[in-house]
Amino acid sequence: MIRTLYWEDGKLYLLDQSLLPATVKYILCTTPEEVALAIRNMVVRGAPLIGVAAAYGVVLAAWNYRGPGERLPQYLEDVFRLLQDTRPTAVNLFWALERMERVCRQNTDKPPATLARALLGEAERMFAADLAANRAIGDYGEKLFSRSVRILTICNAGTLATCGYGTALGIVRSCFAKGKLNMVYACETRPVLQGARLTVWELQQDGIPVTLITDGMAGYLMQAGQVDGVVVGADRIAANGDTANKIGTYSLAVLAHYHQVPFYVAAPLTTIDFSLPSGHDIPIENRAADEVHKVMGHYITLPEVQTLNPAFDVTPCQLITAIITDRGVARPPYTRSLVSLPAGGE
Amino acid sequence: MIRTLYWEDGKLYLLDQSLLPATVKYILCTTPEEVALAIRNMVVRGAPLIGVAAAYGVVLAAWNYRGPGERLPQYLEDVFRLLQDTRPTAVNLFWALERMERVCRQNTDKPPATLARALLGEAERMFAADLAANRAIGDYGEKLFSRSVRILTICNAGTLATCGYGTALGIVRSCFAKGKLNMVYACETRPVLQGARLTVWELQQDGIPVTLITDGMAGYLMQAGQVDGVVVGADRIAANGDTANKIGTYSLAVLAHYHQVPFYVAAPLTTIDFSLPSGHDIPIENRAADEVHKVMGHYITLPEVQTLNPAFDVTPCQLITAIITDRGVARPPYTRSLVSLPAGGE
Repeated sequence: MIRTLYWEDGKLYLLDQSLLPATVKYILCTTPEEVALAIRNMVVRGAPLIGVAAAYGVVLAAWNYRGPGERLPQYLEDVFRLLQDTRPTAVNLFWALERMERVCRQNTDKPPATLARALLGEAERMFAADLAANRAIGDYGEKLFSRSVRILTICNAGTLATCGYGTALGIVRSCFAKGKLNMVYACETRPVLQGARLTVWELQQDGIPVTLITDGMAGYLMQAGQVDGVVVGADRIAANGDTANKIGTYSLAVLAHYHQVPFYVAAPLTTIDFSLPSGHDIPIENRAADEVHKVMGHYITLPEVQTLNPAFDVTPCQLITAIITDRGVARPPYTRSLVSLPAGGE
Repeated sequence: MIRTLYWEDGKLYLLDQSLLPATVKYILCTTPEEVALAIRNMVVRGAPLIGVAAAYGVVLAAWNYRGPGERLPQYLEDVFRLLQDTRPTAVNLFWALERMERVCRQNTDKPPATLARALLGEAERMFAADLAANRAIGDYGEKLFSRSVRILTICNAGTLATCGYGTALGIVRSCFAKGKLNMVYACETRPVLQGARLTVWELQQDGIPVTLITDGMAGYLMQAGQVDGVVVGADRIAANGDTANKIGTYSLAVLAHYHQVPFYVAAPLTTIDFSLPSGHDIPIENRAADEVHKVMGHYITLPEVQTLNPAFDVTPCQLITAIITDRGVARPPYTRSLVSLPAGGE
């Protein structure tokens, strides 16, 4: 399985997803600043993976700290702020940093090396838990489909968005393992092309059948009766089930609704933000116009033209058939079903 | 105004739309084969413009014919077949070629030079009629909108798709001229990016406010209440109003329906194919995988991945609020309203 990140000899290695699929290259991070930049520039992306990458950023801060012990807490506080400010929408980032902050609080009196080892242990637990969560999501999701299924997805909610196996693509993998999968239709996902660059690449690595379409072809495919289910990941799910995910997801949800195609959100429990009553409160990141003006570094339009570039949209819970989590499948009304999911051992 | 094509000294000049907006360059055609290639490769595109370009291809055939007079009819028959086979969906192509064939039949006994002049006259009349039709469409369409309107469009149904002024963008121009236009949202329109490359360019030339969005952002904009109407062109309209247009149009129509945003098709009467009872019978062109694999010549994905590339989709008449033609505005039921439009002087 592709490794999206790994820790070795006090250093963090991140698969540079901005170069895929042309180049498979890991970047070496030794400071939290490098990790923050990698998150901001989408070298590493995907809600669950962003969380774990940020956790390792905190590990790096403590691991390589050489200053006086009494200044470490202040330094770590700055590091937490730096990492929190990288991207606003995916809630896994804040969840992971909170877990790391708790470890810091529990080890305030310990020497820096002890704290660093405790933080590393926590990051490693999160990594392992995410992988296990995705396998659980895959298995819950697979049961929702019958034979020869054709799944449409957007962006990349796969191994590359997580610590392995994937959320939406975890379900795809579990369907494939059971001999149920006919085809994955991958929306290319402009502007950053995660579908064309990442989903196609990781599915082909595993020999899973995939057809690439442009984002405007999804309606055509559903109209032709070629889609049995839409399965997408999530960057943040509000308590009522409203789901922020990659821009274009909402359009797919409306199309699925119109064509009576089931629309599933696949995400670990860590993506649910119970503090937000609805999706109205989810902050949506607006990214640089350059991402729209250019493709692969080349201008596709006039450089000065005004653009919009919201990185996410919010799909209201009414359009979601089910939310497939690592603790089970939640059905409407989500206000009840999401809180009723078993919290698990963590 | 931008000239999409012009005739000068027995030669046809076509604005090479595949190079826009980076380069403004005309290609010189002296044979029908060159015109056929330009249509096939989308150097020249847009249903009304394809028709007139093909007509000039016939003119070139006769104009530069140097063989024996008795072989000209057979040669022209081959030329008609060549031009008919360039692209299957836009009906204007077949309509324009039929008009040129009629001129050939009416001049069978005349010397080649006389026939050539008659064909040129017919092509010039079609050019002028298309320009006039678009101004009429603009004026009919403008009346449907009140103040400060925000129009979303896809592909390019503008000057660059026609002999001038445009169909969907003709309505935009007429709204702008009346001081009614707040904003045009141009979908970039993957795979060939006619929105990003052509619509943005031609609107900016005229100082018309335009914001470029990726195709997946249309739902987000409608959800945010930022779209007052969707206006699109057409490649072929069946007798019942079902409309073939650029891939992605159908998704916009479903989104507009869901958000109760009016969805308008703008096209001259020449785009209506009364011989087809419904859109099921419209042939949809599938183009090369390369258009999906690459953007501006650069691979965005693995070169071997399977793709779909239907160039058009069909929007059923139920999703169309009105069809705005050069002879007036048709409302549902289109089976009645379209045939009732005054046929005009041609």
